[in-house]
Amino acid sequence: MEKIIASIITIGDELLIGQVIDTNSAWMSQELNKAGIWVRRRVAVGDEAESIRGALDQESAEASIILITGGLGPTADDITKPLLSAYFGGRMVVDEKALANVRHIFERVLQRPMIERNLQQAEVPDVCTVIQNKRGTAPGMWFEKDGRIYVSMPGVPHEMKGMMNDYVLPALRERFDLPFIAHRTILTAGIGESFLAEHIAAFESALPPSIRLAYLPNYGMVRLRLTARGDDPAGITEELEGRFHALKELVEEWMVADEDLTLQEAIGKLLTEKGRTMSTAESCTGGNIAHLITSVPGSSRYFKGSVVSYDNAVKERLLKVDPGTIGRSGAVSEEVVRQMINGVLPLMDTDLALAVSGIMGPDGGTTEKPVGTVWVAAGDRKKVITQKFQFRFDRQRNIELTSTFALNLLRKFILSEH
Amino acid sequence: MEKIIASIITIGDELLIGQVIDTNSAWMSQELNKAGIWVRRRVAVGDEAESIRGALDQESAEASIILITGGLGPTADDITKPLLSAYFGGRMVVDEKALANVRHIFERVLQRPMIERNLQQAEVPDVCTVIQNKRGTAPGMWFEKDGRIYVSMPGVPHEMKGMMNDYVLPALRERFDLPFIAHRTILTAGIGESFLAEHIAAFESALPPSIRLAYLPNYGMVRLRLTARGDDPAGITEELEGRFHALKELVEEWMVADEDLTLQEAIGKLLTEKGRTMSTAESCTGGNIAHLITSVPGSSRYFKGSVVSYDNAVKERLLKVDPGTIGRSGAVSEEVVRQMINGVLPLMDTDLALAVSGIMGPDGGTTEKPVGTVWVAAGDRKKVITQKFQFRFDRQRNIELTSTFALNLLRKFILSEH
Repeated sequence: MEKIIASIITIGDELLIGQVIDTNSAWMSQELNKAGIWVRRRVAVGDEAESIRGALDQESAEASIILITGGLGPTADDITKPLLSAYFGGRMVVDEKALANVRHIFERVLQRPMIERNLQQAEVPDVCTVIQNKRGTAPGMWFEKDGRIYVSMPGVPHEMKGMMNDYVLPALRERFDLPFIAHRTILTAGIGESFLAEHIAAFESALPPSIRLAYLPNYGMVRLRLTARGDDPAGITEELEGRFHALKELVEEWMVADEDLTLQEAIGKLLTEKGRTMSTAESCTGGNIAHLITSVPGSSRYFKGSVVSYDNAVKERLLKVDPGTIGRSGAVSEEVVRQMINGVLPLMDTDLALAVSGIMGPDGGTTEKPVGTVWVAAGDRKKVITQKFQFRFDRQRNIELTSTFALNLLRKFILSEH
Repeated sequence: MEKIIASIITIGDELLIGQVIDTNSAWMSQELNKAGIWVRRRVAVGDEAESIRGALDQESAEASIILITGGLGPTADDITKPLLSAYFGGRMVVDEKALANVRHIFERVLQRPMIERNLQQAEVPDVCTVIQNKRGTAPGMWFEKDGRIYVSMPGVPHEMKGMMNDYVLPALRERFDLPFIAHRTILTAGIGESFLAEHIAAFESALPPSIRLAYLPNYGMVRLRLTARGDDPAGITEELEGRFHALKELVEEWMVADEDLTLQEAIGKLLTEKGRTMSTAESCTGGNIAHLITSVPGSSRYFKGSVVSYDNAVKERLLKVDPGTIGRSGAVSEEVVRQMINGVLPLMDTDLALAVSGIMGPDGGTTEKPVGTVWVAAGDRKKVITQKFQFRFDRQRNIELTSTFALNLLRKFILSEH
């Protein structure tokens, strides 16, 4: 079976001056990969005709599918759309369905008058199949040339994702004879990428060519992904399952989840299974742990709330932390996070709680407690476990790592309960 | 003056399977741009020799500076480093300083035994200038060939940023005769990109060629950036200042900040100037607003804490919201967010407070209150202002937009105070 190769071109000056982080390409790569399409390159170019044409020519050399995002917004569409029209030998016409959609969005949804720029969004080259945009005004465009497929979509993430899911991915699956692909993922925490690689080196080198292992480190965790690919679904699946179970046994000590979940999703699943509720008392993470937990749909079933006690007076007044303890041991101490647990449990009326106090930087560090010092506690009314961490990064990364390691301590506590 | 063109190559399978979002390229683009170096293209390729060589060849065609990140981690360095060595005609040798650094990190910082893979990090091609890594084990490499500069750096963001700031950017500034560059930024909220573009169309079309306007939309806000570039610093600066003041007057109604700040930084500045403190009472945002506020260094001067009242019982018990009001009007109502303000102000003992309650989806919507319905209140002990919003996106984006618009309401309240 021939390998189907895709390239992603993102268009927009905002990418090249660095004011926008490109999250689209990662999502598209993930979805294409799952469908058995191999993304070989991703290229970002500015709103500039020569660069866009150059990227189209170059990416056409190796890829059968070229997905393009961006360059279609109301302030940028002077360049990309007419250029694509010329590139594929068409001329610009008004698409009536796209026009009706633009009118609908302005009259019904936004309830604002339309301006000329908005109407231009309904113009498309007459050589494309128009992909209607259910979530915005700019239509997508599907072109074919010399056996290759080119799809141009808006850069607004939820508009692009909607078009990919509703139209582009199903159409690509129909068009190409794609290999059977299966993935199995294990989320690990508490072990670095290099140590993990050393630990499973023999397993990795014994993998058959049909199965590939990827290390995906992020925020103090490493995701291990096994991808199997081939023409024999039954055989491939059996092989994959065998390797997956072997890998699970190898990394059991650090395994957070044996499916493609985030840490907060894994905790949500555990709490739902056990019918337990939780709350947080956060100082240095400033609400980020509660934010991560509530980013999971349905989290209201097990998460009741949080006290963000940034100020010590709030720790004392709301969480009943003893001022004497803060005086003696400091707000960043084992005793204080223990007291925060004991304070937040009755306040939020939950079975379990998680508490953190630390110094995220850049200021506030001392010789004994440098920036990055963090105390975490997790527990219930009967038992509280604690752990001290020392991170060495900037404020943003210290907050992210503290949140990850704190959630992992809570996960261990939940698992240790009977 | 010749325009100095750069390309960025990012290496790593993790980018092409989409498990990692590339934040490095945006940061590098921003810094190069500020220095007067024009980033023309960004390319991502996998850990695959042919793709990496192809990218090096292609990007060398137009750029004088090629910055490369990734491919140097302990599980990936089998390919990139030897390939770069061969590409530039060198052979691999151990760099003693880099080796001492690896040893130091393991013995002193991590306090863990080293393994073979870690030692290999100190090997470099003998044709490069080694850039020592103060934040990790993988050294950077500076190559020169046919008048072009190639810099290879690790993909770990804080390691790459450290190398760029300490060594690469200063060395590039010294090497090239870069134009004078100046930026002025205005952050706007509450007006869409197309309406803003229409509103300032005459201003934009009258800009001289030395000044460029960029629209940078993000999370319901639009950042307007004027960039002036040329050989005459005094003249350019004067021209830029004049245009900047004209633009400020044009967009005054929607202006959040007249400098390159985030909304939470702008609020922090206002509160510091006025010597006021604040707290939040968050339902649907689950702590994200507190997280945004506390992501600003020094926020402990004006932010005291938050009650995340995800559960209605927490709204009633802690924030003293009347159960009768929740029963009559629902938790997502103007009355409830007003009561949340009145409850959180004495609890956190702050001058000001911000409260939100809404339905973020995917579940929980009704006909009268569909997913995306949000009530926000901002106020002090004397006055509370409220606003209703209707967002139409997925959970993640609804949370982000609610946080942005809520912070903007608080900003307006602070400005309206005397």
